[in-house]
Amino acid sequence: MIKLILDCFGGDNSPNAHVKGALLALEELDDLDLTLTGDEAAIMKELEGKKYDAARLHVIHAPEVIGCDETPTLAIKQKKESSLMKAIELIRADDGYHGVITTGSTGALVAAATLRIGRIRGVKRPAFCPLLPTMNGGIVGVCDSGANVDVSVRMLCEFAIMGTMYLKCAYGIENPRAALLNIGEEEGKGDELRKSAYPVLKGMESVNFAGNMESRDLLSGKYDLVVCDGFSGNVLIKSTEGACLEMLKKLKKDIYSRTINKIGALLMKKMFDEEKRFMDYRNYGGSVLLGCRKIVVKGHGSSNDISVLRCVEQAYRMQKSGMIKLTADAVEAFAGTVPEE
Amino acid sequence: MIKLILDCFGGDNSPNAHVKGALLALEELDDLDLTLTGDEAAIMKELEGKKYDAARLHVIHAPEVIGCDETPTLAIKQKKESSLMKAIELIRADDGYHGVITTGSTGALVAAATLRIGRIRGVKRPAFCPLLPTMNGGIVGVCDSGANVDVSVRMLCEFAIMGTMYLKCAYGIENPRAALLNIGEEEGKGDELRKSAYPVLKGMESVNFAGNMESRDLLSGKYDLVVCDGFSGNVLIKSTEGACLEMLKKLKKDIYSRTINKIGALLMKKMFDEEKRFMDYRNYGGSVLLGCRKIVVKGHGSSNDISVLRCVEQAYRMQKSGMIKLTADAVEAFAGTVPEE
Repeated sequence: MIKLILDCFGGDNSPNAHVKGALLALEELDDLDLTLTGDEAAIMKELEGKKYDAARLHVIHAPEVIGCDETPTLAIKQKKESSLMKAIELIRADDGYHGVITTGSTGALVAAATLRIGRIRGVKRPAFCPLLPTMNGGIVGVCDSGANVDVSVRMLCEFAIMGTMYLKCAYGIENPRAALLNIGEEEGKGDELRKSAYPVLKGMESVNFAGNMESRDLLSGKYDLVVCDGFSGNVLIKSTEGACLEMLKKLKKDIYSRTINKIGALLMKKMFDEEKRFMDYRNYGGSVLLGCRKIVVKGHGSSNDISVLRCVEQAYRMQKSGMIKLTADAVEAFAGTVPEE
Repeated sequence: MIKLILDCFGGDNSPNAHVKGALLALEELDDLDLTLTGDEAAIMKELEGKKYDAARLHVIHAPEVIGCDETPTLAIKQKKESSLMKAIELIRADDGYHGVITTGSTGALVAAATLRIGRIRGVKRPAFCPLLPTMNGGIVGVCDSGANVDVSVRMLCEFAIMGTMYLKCAYGIENPRAALLNIGEEEGKGDELRKSAYPVLKGMESVNFAGNMESRDLLSGKYDLVVCDGFSGNVLIKSTEGACLEMLKKLKKDIYSRTINKIGALLMKKMFDEEKRFMDYRNYGGSVLLGCRKIVVKGHGSSNDISVLRCVEQAYRMQKSGMIKLTADAVEAFAGTVPEE
């Protein structure tokens, strides 16, 4: 049995989307056991009249919620009765639980996961690895996308291992092509960090290093994983999302500015709907926090039932395939090949 | 008279686009004097049969060309007879010349400009400032976009001054809103560099500091200038361009996949043509290298005659408005307010 904990509060559609997503997951996955945390009355109300396997669904009452505007380190100390901290403490205390999923505060999650769940032995810092759709129908992971803004060569290499194992385990990509985000493709390009990291990445056994990637190639489908510091990874992802959204907004405005465009767009409605669905990050699961001792998935704040389902599926596959153990082994093997920082 | 030098070689459309662009510029600007460098016979052939004011157009023969694949520091030493180095040495030696424009190797230009033209007194390092169109019809500058990958707080502040003066002088933006590229909007976000830079930028007299900007807001029109290190600036610009281009490519593919879409697109042809023109960087002039003792403009390698014209116009306006002097004064005033690094 795979046992996961789902924090049902702190999201825009809490707890409705979470309860619905949980039921969909239980229906789909026979050996899944789910524990929901949050206001019990509210959760029970959502469950009312629904059919589900009660033996595999549990509710733990948590009267508080951590908001996204709260200072993470303070919130995790002061709000011990919050849905997030109840979930974190449960997974910390009981090794029977394998993973936690939340759509709440990112900062609080990182702080709580790092301080309370702890890291895989040998991993310097956990890192986020969200996925983006590529233009040829695949996906690409970006690790780290914002958890660590000041990083070392060693950390970049660990991000490469963690991302590689994630894509292998959760998405069945056999030998993920991992690129280093840089400002030119040739070896020797970039700042001191990138220049030093390149040869080390190239020599790694557990990583299929594919060289430097320029940011314009992110969506091209040439790579499965992009390795970067959290600052430039964050810039990479948010500018890509921002550009796509601004362009769609502009197209929409321009379409409405002339009747002939409106008629044209009407004919193309099905296509435009597909583009919108393609761009909707909610269809691609959550951003996983890799490097923790347990599976940690952060769904988007505006997650609906389907995106909650996707997050649960992700966590399930990561656990089912033994990702944590594979990552730990690879990190340990790598540590033996380089001097301690 | 504003005297500029145009390197006519090293671009995809050399020298045809350059000569045509030069003639358009001379026709438009009465007090412009242009010197073209490159293979004289090839340039004269392009001039054949054209009408122009010969007193304001000069040609200096340069038999060599620096390719984009050459090592910059080697190329500028070995190819003294190249169109770029002839232009650079001319402007270095003769204070009668005000600026240089090239569409050739970026690396060679940065090396040659830094080593041979020299910096404005007090400026630590020259920086690139390309412009992007915003979705509300304006422009936004990004400084630095790749000339300096390892930067200090002092350098970020100088980028802010140089970019501000550029937007004021070349585009008449009265009080450019300058934002610091960061991974969150609140003060205190980001890595050590950003945390330290924020309060210094906030206290600057010559810069209208508008706080942190997240990369998703680049095209929103909320800011006129984005201040960043060359690494993340490069990621910002190339991922924005890459996302827009990949999306257009996907739209095109999807349009051609169904007849109904083709009919719809036909009705919207005028709109799609406008979107394409809007996205075409060639309509927005070159990326200027700020902080040099003279005006330096780097046009795109694939520049056509109109983009060459835009580059010449940019250089002309920068000189006409006394940008170098204004920048030097502001940098000097700023230097007095902070400790030497």
